[in-house]
Amino acid sequence: MSYELYYWPTIQGRGEFVRLALEEAGAEYVDVARGPNGTRAMMRLMRDAEKPPFAPPFLRSGDLLIGQTSAILLYLGAQHGLAPKDPAGGLWTHQIQLTIADLVNEAHDTHHPVGVGLYYEDQKDEALRRAKEFRQSRIPKFLQWFEEILDRNPSGSDHLVGADLTYADLSLFQVVEGLTYAFPYATAAALRKTPLVAALHRAVAERPRIRAYLESERRIPFNQEGIFRQYSELDG
Amino acid sequence: MSYELYYWPTIQGRGEFVRLALEEAGAEYVDVARGPNGTRAMMRLMRDAEKPPFAPPFLRSGDLLIGQTSAILLYLGAQHGLAPKDPAGGLWTHQIQLTIADLVNEAHDTHHPVGVGLYYEDQKDEALRRAKEFRQSRIPKFLQWFEEILDRNPSGSDHLVGADLTYADLSLFQVVEGLTYAFPYATAAALRKTPLVAALHRAVAERPRIRAYLESERRIPFNQEGIFRQYSELDG
Repeated sequence: MSYELYYWPTIQGRGEFVRLALEEAGAEYVDVARGPNGTRAMMRLMRDAEKPPFAPPFLRSGDLLIGQTSAILLYLGAQHGLAPKDPAGGLWTHQIQLTIADLVNEAHDTHHPVGVGLYYEDQKDEALRRAKEFRQSRIPKFLQWFEEILDRNPSGSDHLVGADLTYADLSLFQVVEGLTYAFPYATAAALRKTPLVAALHRAVAERPRIRAYLESERRIPFNQEGIFRQYSELDG
Repeated sequence: MSYELYYWPTIQGRGEFVRLALEEAGAEYVDVARGPNGTRAMMRLMRDAEKPPFAPPFLRSGDLLIGQTSAILLYLGAQHGLAPKDPAGGLWTHQIQLTIADLVNEAHDTHHPVGVGLYYEDQKDEALRRAKEFRQSRIPKFLQWFEEILDRNPSGSDHLVGADLTYADLSLFQVVEGLTYAFPYATAAALRKTPLVAALHRAVAERPRIRAYLESERRIPFNQEGIFRQYSELDG
C-alpha cells in the first residue's frame, strides 16, 4: 500500500518533514499535489473529508487521513521504527518534534510578522525588527537546547533520542538546512557553538536514503515562497 | 501518586489546557510554581533535567517529565480516558489539539507580532494590523473548522471526537474563553455563525468538575500578562 502525501507542490515547507520521514523509511508514497490535478484533489479533501485537515500537509494511509505535521510524524514514527517503541521514549521524541515545530513557526514569522495575508514588502520594517530578535536570541537558544539534549543523551550524542535515528533527528536536520538557507551568517555562528547539532546535521545528510533523496528531483529547492526564505537584509 | 504541573504562576497561558484536563480527570496535582520557591524549582528543572523541557508548561508523572502542552495532553488523554483508546481516534483528537495550539499561537502574536522581547506598547501599530487580519479572517476560519468537525461527527455534534468528552473539547472551551476575553465583539460575531461550537463551550462550562474549578481560587483570572489579553483597540 502506498501513502498519499498532500502538500503544496512548489515548496519544502512543513511537508518536507513528512517527506524526509517517508524517504528515510523507504516507504512508497505519492506526492499527490505535484501530479496532475493534485492541488484540486487536496483542496477537495480539506473541504469534504469527514475528518477534514485544517491545512496541508496531510497524509492518507489506507482509511486514515492525518493532518498536522507532528501528528503525521507520530504515526509514521510508530509505523516505521523512527521512534522508540516504549511510551516514554515515544513521548520524548514527540516533545522534541513539537519544539522544532515552534522554531519553524518562529522562522516563518520573521518574514511575515504582521500577517500571512500581506506581502513581505508590506511588512519589511517589522520583519527587520522581528528577524533581529530571532537571529540574536531565538536561533542560539533553540540550537543550544538541542545541543544539551544531544550532550545528555545517555545512549550517546549521535542522536537526540536513544541510540537510533528518530524522526526528530530528521526534523532537526531539516530545520538546520532551512536556517542555514535563510540566515546563513547567524546560523553558522550559532552552529560553531553547537558542534553536536552540526555533526548530527552532517550525519543525516550522509545517510544513503537521505542523500539519494536530496540529490533527486523529489527534493524541491528552497525558494522565496516557503517557510525559509533568503532575504539577506534579515540576516543582519 | 500526585502529578506536578510546572507553569508560570500568574497566568492561565498554555498551562491552562493542562489544568483543565487534570481538573476534569479529578486527578491529584500540585501546581508547583504557585507554591513557595516553585518558580525556582521550575527553572532548575529546565536547566538540569536529563530531558529538559524547552519551556513551561511541563508535567512530572513519577519518573516522566513531559513538556509541550500537546504532548502532555496526549499523555493525560490516554491515562484518564480523555481520548479514544483506538489509535485512529487518538490521532484525530491530537490533530485537533495541534490545530487549537496553532490558533493559540496566532492569538498570542496579535499583541506581540514583532517579538516577545518587546513590550506591547513598542509594537502597537503592528499589533493593530495583525489583529485586524486575525479577527476578520482567522477567528472565523478556525471556528468554522471546529463547527464542521462537530457537524460531521458521526457520533453526534456534542463532542469533537466520538460520543464522549476528550481533551480537545476542553481545549476548545478554553480557546473560546480566551478569544471571548481578548476579542469580545469579533468572537461573539463568529460564534453566532458557529452554534455547535458555542453550545460545546457552554456544555463544558457546566460539567460539574469544570464548574467547580472555574469558581475556585485555582482558576487564575485572565489578565494582561497572558496569551489572551484585552486591548480593546485590537477588537476593532
